[in-house]
Amino acid sequence: MIQITEPTLLLNEDICRANIQRMVEKAQHHSLQFKPHMKTHQSADIGEWLREAGVEAITVSSVTMASFFAQQGWSDITIAFPCNLREVEAINQLAEEVDLTLLVNAPETAQRLQKELASPVSVYIELDTGSERTGLPTTNITGIEKLIAIFEDSDVLQWKGFYSHPGHSYSARSVEDIRRIHQSVLDRINTLKSALNMNADVYEICIGDTPCCSKGTDFSGIDAISPGNFVFYDLMQAQIGSCASSDIATAVACPIVDRYPDRRQIAIYGGAIHFSKESIEMDGIAHYGLVAKPADQGWSKLDKGTYLAGLSQEHGIVQCSPASFEQFQIGDVVTVLPVHSCLTAQLLGEYQLPSGQKISQF
Amino acid sequence: MIQITEPTLLLNEDICRANIQRMVEKAQHHSLQFKPHMKTHQSADIGEWLREAGVEAITVSSVTMASFFAQQGWSDITIAFPCNLREVEAINQLAEEVDLTLLVNAPETAQRLQKELASPVSVYIELDTGSERTGLPTTNITGIEKLIAIFEDSDVLQWKGFYSHPGHSYSARSVEDIRRIHQSVLDRINTLKSALNMNADVYEICIGDTPCCSKGTDFSGIDAISPGNFVFYDLMQAQIGSCASSDIATAVACPIVDRYPDRRQIAIYGGAIHFSKESIEMDGIAHYGLVAKPADQGWSKLDKGTYLAGLSQEHGIVQCSPASFEQFQIGDVVTVLPVHSCLTAQLLGEYQLPSGQKISQF
Repeated sequence: MIQITEPTLLLNEDICRANIQRMVEKAQHHSLQFKPHMKTHQSADIGEWLREAGVEAITVSSVTMASFFAQQGWSDITIAFPCNLREVEAINQLAEEVDLTLLVNAPETAQRLQKELASPVSVYIELDTGSERTGLPTTNITGIEKLIAIFEDSDVLQWKGFYSHPGHSYSARSVEDIRRIHQSVLDRINTLKSALNMNADVYEICIGDTPCCSKGTDFSGIDAISPGNFVFYDLMQAQIGSCASSDIATAVACPIVDRYPDRRQIAIYGGAIHFSKESIEMDGIAHYGLVAKPADQGWSKLDKGTYLAGLSQEHGIVQCSPASFEQFQIGDVVTVLPVHSCLTAQLLGEYQLPSGQKISQF
Repeated sequence: MIQITEPTLLLNEDICRANIQRMVEKAQHHSLQFKPHMKTHQSADIGEWLREAGVEAITVSSVTMASFFAQQGWSDITIAFPCNLREVEAINQLAEEVDLTLLVNAPETAQRLQKELASPVSVYIELDTGSERTGLPTTNITGIEKLIAIFEDSDVLQWKGFYSHPGHSYSARSVEDIRRIHQSVLDRINTLKSALNMNADVYEICIGDTPCCSKGTDFSGIDAISPGNFVFYDLMQAQIGSCASSDIATAVACPIVDRYPDRRQIAIYGGAIHFSKESIEMDGIAHYGLVAKPADQGWSKLDKGTYLAGLSQEHGIVQCSPASFEQFQIGDVVTVLPVHSCLTAQLLGEYQLPSGQKISQF
């Protein structure tokens, strides 16, 4: 393994490219436009891997991220976040450069944009399909029709359709759970489509969560998908049922700095500022990461019974299986699969390939 | 307020300097050396505020952070983290430049350092005074004496004393709780001192958590303190009993991007990548931050009943009191006090003073 001196995010390019290829083929199979979300990797290079796999349009979660990817030559960008009016200046600049799509969920946002936008943009109405995070409930027909009417009157807001992130799929704990939630999302969307007295060919529907996009088998009534996490997956996705642990494309290599035989624990350099504080519960115990066996190419299969049991700012405490504890020595390196790769990637800021090559984020 | 376009970490310099002054005076009152931990702010400028208050020695949690502050002219630096042997090259460079103190908790670490260090460093033995994170239990007299003997034989490892971070004080929920834990820490340390058959004047004891340093009244047997969080405090410290909410020196200003009357919630631009996923439980509900009323200088008192109820990568969902919900409009800004200021500061990377001046981190 390349020389590790501090917590280092390893990326397995083969797994990542296979995850990309699988989702590309799934979109093709279901005749869906594929507009992957870039928030997980935030990397120009991984963007190129997507481009090589045929991707032409992308999704991002901030104006800053949109500007970065516009500079990388992406020309069809959806900012999948309720439009932030305080960034209208940057939005105007972006709209000159690329085919920009915004999420506009409120008449007051639409009215302000109508006054302040310098050039036309496309807009999605965001739908709340059960996650209760952002967007209009699919049952709010009056609110949705009111927005569509505003867009029809507007010379700068060109209505494109609906966007939804069914984040409640994260509560799933099996493929069956995911498919049940996915079906309820489709039902809500298709009920809305029936209720709207319009030709459904004039607008599109885009949905965007990794669990449903990974395990859904029916995409009736859907035109586009925009998952993000699938490029790396992580332990949370494995627990949800979206992927196998062998599909996880990143791990954090952490130096071992101390050993505690009485507790069968080791201390590692790798804490909340590297992993984030996200955890999954297994057997009633919070797990902040799972240790994988080391391998020449980074890591191999999970080291059963060995997990990240505690995190403070820079410290990690790993609970070890008896066999692993005996092997781990101060000065060695352990590789830890992250609970939430989006946050871990954002915190670590760059990727290390097995070749030693580094890939940066914006 | 200065123009906010995205999540922005506001810093109230007056509160921060008052927090510093209070701890400086407390250390003087108890005849303690004050070696504040820089991991919370990670800022050269705030380091200068500490220097102006008379601070001469500092504590950090990584070799990288030590190198940064060495460049800022700090010459007495303790790396309060079990020595990471994989950074011995950087440690050797630092040891040439500054009076460096390392934490060495294991014979194997000491033996490797004996071979690989190019010049002498000071060493603390870290004590586990009840937190069960890192360090030797105070009852492990044999292990401690073995380490001291190694240091006595060494020409590069100059034994300085003991260091402890009683992180279990974070379980306190009142000043009485903090003082009870603080007393048990002192008891453990003083029992160890009695058990060691040595003159206690030849070594020093440094302890470092913000709750005990803020609310402890007895420091018998202690020579130095190294708290870090106290410069900003946060909601977790207020819940522990270390501070009042009016002592919290930072807040995150976040644009309001959507409103949900049915749920009396607003969506803000401000998520896990700005706040971290740390939460406190109040009335059985996870709170990721508390909203404070806006003010010309940043924020004023807490907006009762209005709190950050959910976080995803960039999204925050704020549950509002009826009165506040009516006031909050899309395009406005809310100020949110963070649960854990160390992580929030690390994520946001720079501070905005009420004057509009920006202060960066390393």
